[in-house]
Amino acid sequence: MTNQIYKQVFSFFLSVLLLQSSTVSYVPKSFDLKKPCKHFVLYLHNIAYDGDNAANATAATIVKPLGLGDHSFGELIIINNPVTLDQNYLSKPVARAQGFYFYNMKTNYNAWVAWTLVFNSTKHKGTFTIMDANPFGLQPARDLSIVGGTGDFLMTRGIATFKTKLTQGSKYFCVEMNIKLYECY
Amino acid sequence: MTNQIYKQVFSFFLSVLLLQSSTVSYVPKSFDLKKPCKHFVLYLHNIAYDGDNAANATAATIVKPLGLGDHSFGELIIINNPVTLDQNYLSKPVARAQGFYFYNMKTNYNAWVAWTLVFNSTKHKGTFTIMDANPFGLQPARDLSIVGGTGDFLMTRGIATFKTKLTQGSKYFCVEMNIKLYECY
Amino acid sequence: MTNQIYKQVFSFFLSVLLLQSSTVSYVPKSFDLKKPCKHFVLYLHNIAYDGDNAANATAATIVKPLGLGDHSFGELIIINNPVTLDQNYLSKPVARAQGFYFYNMKTNYNAWVAWTLVFNSTKHKGTFTIMDANPFGLQPARDLSIVGGTGDFLMTRGIATFKTKLTQGSKYFCVEMNIKLYECY
Repeated sequence: MTNQIYKQVFSFFLSVLLLQSSTVSYVPKSFDLKKPCKHFVLYLHNIAYDGDNAANATAATIVKPLGLGDHSFGELIIINNPVTLDQNYLSKPVARAQGFYFYNMKTNYNAWVAWTLVFNSTKHKGTFTIMDANPFGLQPARDLSIVGGTGDFLMTRGIATFKTKLTQGSKYFCVEMNIKLYECY
Repeated sequence: MTNQIYKQVFSFFLSVLLLQSSTVSYVPKSFDLKKPCKHFVLYLHNIAYDGDNAANATAATIVKPLGLGDHSFGELIIINNPVTLDQNYLSKPVARAQGFYFYNMKTNYNAWVAWTLVFNSTKHKGTFTIMDANPFGLQPARDLSIVGGTGDFLMTRGIATFKTKLTQGSKYFCVEMNIKLYECY
Repeated sequence: MTNQIYKQVFSFFLSVLLLQSSTVSYVPKSFDLKKPCKHFVLYLHNIAYDGDNAANATAATIVKPLGLGDHSFGELIIINNPVTLDQNYLSKPVARAQGFYFYNMKTNYNAWVAWTLVFNSTKHKGTFTIMDANPFGLQPARDLSIVGGTGDFLMTRGIATFKTKLTQGSKYFCVEMNIKLYECY
């Protein structure tokens, strides 16, 4: 009798464990998009170098557009932009966005972005990198993937939703970055 | 007697659970390479800008080769290439490949690639990014890593196997991309 | 009596399993930073192209600095650097580092890096990609994220700690890369 119970209990848990271990690998996982393990909103400020504003500039075009279409196709920009907690570009930066972007559409404004947010304060140390297409001329809100990180953001992954908050010609823009991290360690 | 069974069952499952929980973190995981959670084949078409074909061009050199070796070392190309379900470049695109590549070998054709596939149809919305070395002059089939995504491809990871299907001088090439995703959400 | 034991054992393991399965998704995971699944130290050697050393050069500037500050802001370099097991650049390479970096700080030396280590020996075949900010003028040791891989390093993730071991003006540098992989398949 007890032997039978033993067998039943054994086979039940064995099946559960096998089921579970198989889900670790290639079976689709699911998680709640509304419950990131970290969530915060940041504002990036891009002040373009125009040859005269070396003291203030935070981004610079290193390759000029090709003339393929009217939307800057081929222009390549390197950035070291301040990132703040509100939309005021004079607020104390909490991080820098280091990386590059380039324009890659003939018929509209569209960028491809690889930006690493670098935190180096008493509150946060570490980095994470956002890399994706950023069709800012086509969509008011764009999701970009976050593919890795270090320090406080060790091996993190997630999504950054970008919204352009302000553009002043080719001189300045401000982008809201809604950061949702789904893998935290 | 029943007490003893209880102890045995308990210790057995405890050891299994402990073993299992420890595998979540740093012990090597294994999965079946033959069973991706998503699998499909796409074809990318690269029509190079030559100064005269602005209407048709989908890719453009923004930095010319340096003359370091005879295999275009240093040439940097930005792309916005149509991606189709078959090898015919006139087929209706199901995605665009946005990103860049550059040549980086003195002795053979070898590229380094960062391409984001952007899907924006009724069937699929979202992106994923392929980034890796692409030694197309050395290997007929090359595996490249897929490092992140958004939308229908949220936080995906996997492998893209590239095979060059056609090359017409420096004007056109077609690459088959065999996409195998092993993390789906 | 045995029935009661069955119930107790059942409820105990059920609660453990439920607890465990819920941690798979979005609840913060933890792991032991000191126990990577793979750990090794490599040395990268960068021999800059100066126009006369085509036979030896392994890296070349494709876009020159802008003159925004005194720390090479805007300079873009493409690499195909040998990677060895010790600091001697004449040692037999075990991998190549393919990719690019650029300088992006006005006030100090700071690079942004995307390097793919390509292994193609009898011992190791495969790639993994390091991508992050690399503030080599500010910090003796820098953590950079490893975001994906192929072959023996299939879908790996982790951290590379960089230390500059030697710099000879703008001609040569050697970087120690302490590789710690936390996801192995």
